[in-house]
Amino acid sequence: MAELDTVIGILGTVAFAVTAVLAVIPKGIDVFGATVMALITAIGGGTISDVILGVPSSWSKDLTYVWVALASSVVAFYGNGWMKAEQIYRLMLYLDAAGVALFVIRGVQKAMALQFALPVGPVILGVIGGIGGGLIRDTLAGNTNLLMKHELYALPLTVGAVAYLVLAQAFPGHTSSISFATILLMFMARVVTIDHQLVVPRWMLLGEQGEPNSLTLVAPP
Amino acid sequence: MAELDTVIGILGTVAFAVTAVLAVIPKGIDVFGATVMALITAIGGGTISDVILGVPSSWSKDLTYVWVALASSVVAFYGNGWMKAEQIYRLMLYLDAAGVALFVIRGVQKAMALQFALPVGPVILGVIGGIGGGLIRDTLAGNTNLLMKHELYALPLTVGAVAYLVLAQAFPGHTSSISFATILLMFMARVVTIDHQLVVPRWMLLGEQGEPNSLTLVAPP
Amino acid sequence: MAELDTVIGILGTVAFAVTAVLAVIPKGIDVFGATVMALITAIGGGTISDVILGVPSSWSKDLTYVWVALASSVVAFYGNGWMKAEQIYRLMLYLDAAGVALFVIRGVQKAMALQFALPVGPVILGVIGGIGGGLIRDTLAGNTNLLMKHELYALPLTVGAVAYLVLAQAFPGHTSSISFATILLMFMARVVTIDHQLVVPRWMLLGEQGEPNSLTLVAPP
Repeated sequence: MAELDTVIGILGTVAFAVTAVLAVIPKGIDVFGATVMALITAIGGGTISDVILGVPSSWSKDLTYVWVALASSVVAFYGNGWMKAEQIYRLMLYLDAAGVALFVIRGVQKAMALQFALPVGPVILGVIGGIGGGLIRDTLAGNTNLLMKHELYALPLTVGAVAYLVLAQAFPGHTSSISFATILLMFMARVVTIDHQLVVPRWMLLGEQGEPNSLTLVAPP
Repeated sequence: MAELDTVIGILGTVAFAVTAVLAVIPKGIDVFGATVMALITAIGGGTISDVILGVPSSWSKDLTYVWVALASSVVAFYGNGWMKAEQIYRLMLYLDAAGVALFVIRGVQKAMALQFALPVGPVILGVIGGIGGGLIRDTLAGNTNLLMKHELYALPLTVGAVAYLVLAQAFPGHTSSISFATILLMFMARVVTIDHQLVVPRWMLLGEQGEPNSLTLVAPP
Repeated sequence: MAELDTVIGILGTVAFAVTAVLAVIPKGIDVFGATVMALITAIGGGTISDVILGVPSSWSKDLTYVWVALASSVVAFYGNGWMKAEQIYRLMLYLDAAGVALFVIRGVQKAMALQFALPVGPVILGVIGGIGGGLIRDTLAGNTNLLMKHELYALPLTVGAVAYLVLAQAFPGHTSSISFATILLMFMARVVTIDHQLVVPRWMLLGEQGEPNSLTLVAPP
């Protein structure tokens, strides 16, 4: 399990960095700026979450994700023509989906272990850990962030975080299988979303919001 | 006094959430995004302030404001037509005024109790606690934030925070009446501002800034 | 050396505040908002860096920079016509260059002393301390931030931070001369950049990015 975590975490970080670079290139950024944006995307959310928890940033103990993000972003910058190819970009979206599901559940577990603001706190911190870096990146780059779109991204993560929390409190002896199951379901929900370009259901929108912008789903940004 | 605090705090949080939702709805947000924005508005400023102080977030011990913000935001989203009615919206602005005055002074008191960066620190942290969440919300939503407008919002809060600090240090035995008086005065200053759509005085502006945008004052955003 | 630090730090903070005010005035800000922006620019980066390090904000112990930023911003707001004069503005850019070089290296040293996330952590925290406040200011003001431009600003700071880190680990007995040399070199690199309006080299850009926006370099914003 620990090895699978490491593999998903690294592949997810690669995807975070690559999609971050592709998202900021149209803004006319240089390789240095792109690398900073990739790093913010990869470790920004976890850093905020750790600061709120009052624990040292996870990257202060293990720099793996930092190195992976730095290396991936340089490759993605100079290889951006290749990365934008539909198959590659779709693969990145799938890896992003796996990575973010893992990071959210690990964030929920970390906050639960610290008994932080139960029951809502772990959900808030898990979701911040998962999407916080992307929010900062979009804000700095002047892009519309995912909260302002109707793409199913943060919502399934939040549902997954709540599901983990409820199940882990009901069946405390089975956290590792609950973790595995929720990560898998969040990942699959996201794969279906990507493949079918799903957006939030109609009842979550107001009347005049009938044409959501879902272009970011599959097309390269 | 503690009961009055609780009532003002809850009503203020309702107003934070409702005005946050109304501010982001024109951007085409869905109910999930609107709820996140309301939560950020309600607890974002206090969270930053607590992190700078190096103390646990207040919502890690008491989730009342979190629940109030979540519930209010859903009601405001689906009831937004009703909330935008002038009488309701004006009521929300008054409740917001009372809530933010309370949160600023409680923030000042918290920093003073920790002797943090006296004499300026408590003012900075009180104001961050009061307006920080709104600044993050506006930034994420792509709205112009209140620092870039000429509406009298952060300025009276800052004056009130300074007044509390000065008076509480001069008369340390009377902090609860000083607290009551400054909150009341900040609230009344804001009510007058809302009713008369006041903007910052002329000498605080540069020559070419003669037509401040004060539309956010009374008209629903 | 401590006196030189103090002088550079204060002059750098003056420059941070003045350039911040000049950067937000075109947005139609009033003197209160301009002062807040100057304060954020002056102490924002260091505050984030200290929060990530888990140490109290440096301004909680010494408010010198806070007072300097507040006073300078008021002077810059009302004296903005005079500050925008080419000679004065260029002087401010030079002082900013000296100040930011100092703050980056002091940030690197602080993180190294705490053994934080060696070897990359001190570089990240030093650069955040140097440019973080400006990033927040630009984001709040709706200006394009320096990461999205091709001006040589954050890049030479990062190179300087890496150089200090490498040299200080190789020659631990000579940190004060290494500090002096790297600050001087970073300052000189920035002076040359300002005087010749340098932008990032061609190989750091993608094909379609041939006309970088370097207007912020010397012309008043």
